[in-house]
Amino acid sequence: MTKGEETRQRIVELAAPLFNQRGYAGCSVADIMEATGLEKGGIYRYFESKEDLAAEAFKFSVAEIRKLRTDDLDSIPGAVAKLRFIMDRFVSEPSPMQGGCPLMNTAIDADDGNAALRGLVRDAFVDWRRRVAAIVRQGIRDGDINKSTDPAELADTIIATLEGALMLARLDGNKRALKHVRQSMELLLTAHSV
Amino acid sequence: MTKGEETRQRIVELAAPLFNQRGYAGCSVADIMEATGLEKGGIYRYFESKEDLAAEAFKFSVAEIRKLRTDDLDSIPGAVAKLRFIMDRFVSEPSPMQGGCPLMNTAIDADDGNAALRGLVRDAFVDWRRRVAAIVRQGIRDGDINKSTDPAELADTIIATLEGALMLARLDGNKRALKHVRQSMELLLTAHSV
Repeated sequence: MTKGEETRQRIVELAAPLFNQRGYAGCSVADIMEATGLEKGGIYRYFESKEDLAAEAFKFSVAEIRKLRTDDLDSIPGAVAKLRFIMDRFVSEPSPMQGGCPLMNTAIDADDGNAALRGLVRDAFVDWRRRVAAIVRQGIRDGDINKSTDPAELADTIIATLEGALMLARLDGNKRALKHVRQSMELLLTAHSV
Repeated sequence: MTKGEETRQRIVELAAPLFNQRGYAGCSVADIMEATGLEKGGIYRYFESKEDLAAEAFKFSVAEIRKLRTDDLDSIPGAVAKLRFIMDRFVSEPSPMQGGCPLMNTAIDADDGNAALRGLVRDAFVDWRRRVAAIVRQGIRDGDINKSTDPAELADTIIATLEGALMLARLDGNKRALKHVRQSMELLLTAHSV
């Protein structure tokens, strides 16, 4: 990495949690100047606009969260164990950065606004939903999960439930809601298992 | 209502969907001036601050959504039918106002910021969770729901799942995720039913 690339990367890494905590409108370029110690010109040397920086920060957040949520997944044998691993990991470490899940935060933040961010977060959720559905499909092929199970339905349920519970848990300031849905998802998984 | 009270109420009703769509930081007093056709002084005659107006707008939103989600609920016989009614109503009419569910939006918006709004949204979710848990408890007493079911666990799961699915549905621009979780919740309800 050149010095310029290093600075650019440092701006992205410092901006990501700020956008995640404050939202797009709530995080100003002045906030990012303060966090990075750079002048406005020093930031705009690397990014065309605040939109551009927010998009890069979100891509960084998505890469971090994808790593957190699916790292080591390949080493887990069997679809049902993989789904359990995803849920347990989510409950134990719901987000890699301050402010909660960047996917959910950006989805709520961008659903009425910023079209570029909205496209990126939609892609990120499509990717996550497909990955979970692929695990369910593998489970059906392996005979671990019922043939009648709809992979997209189960994937959407697991993801929606975890994200919704994280929202409640952050409000509560404790993991009660996450533990509650983890129990319910276990029951659902049992109902889908062969 | 006096003319002043009417004006105040009109500001609240017009501000509520703006805060809901844009978030607290993303909705300026200028936006509210534009929507209401009032000068800044005409708004601050009725509210101490933007914080104060946002809190009143949120209380209005909560009352609207509570009406939408639980109206007619008393006329539904039996706990399981009541839970189905809540879920069906949520899928058919997820939010009474532009911008999606004001509870979820405000929860995400306020979890790192605005303490007053955070308190209000926490109270609103506590209320909703208690009401759903009370229905489950009634179902256990009536012998419709298993004695081993944890009312808070099932209530948290239903609410987290519906809210998470609404987030996905708004990103998708269709109700697929809501319909998926509705199916899953039916399976879960069956597992909890006697």
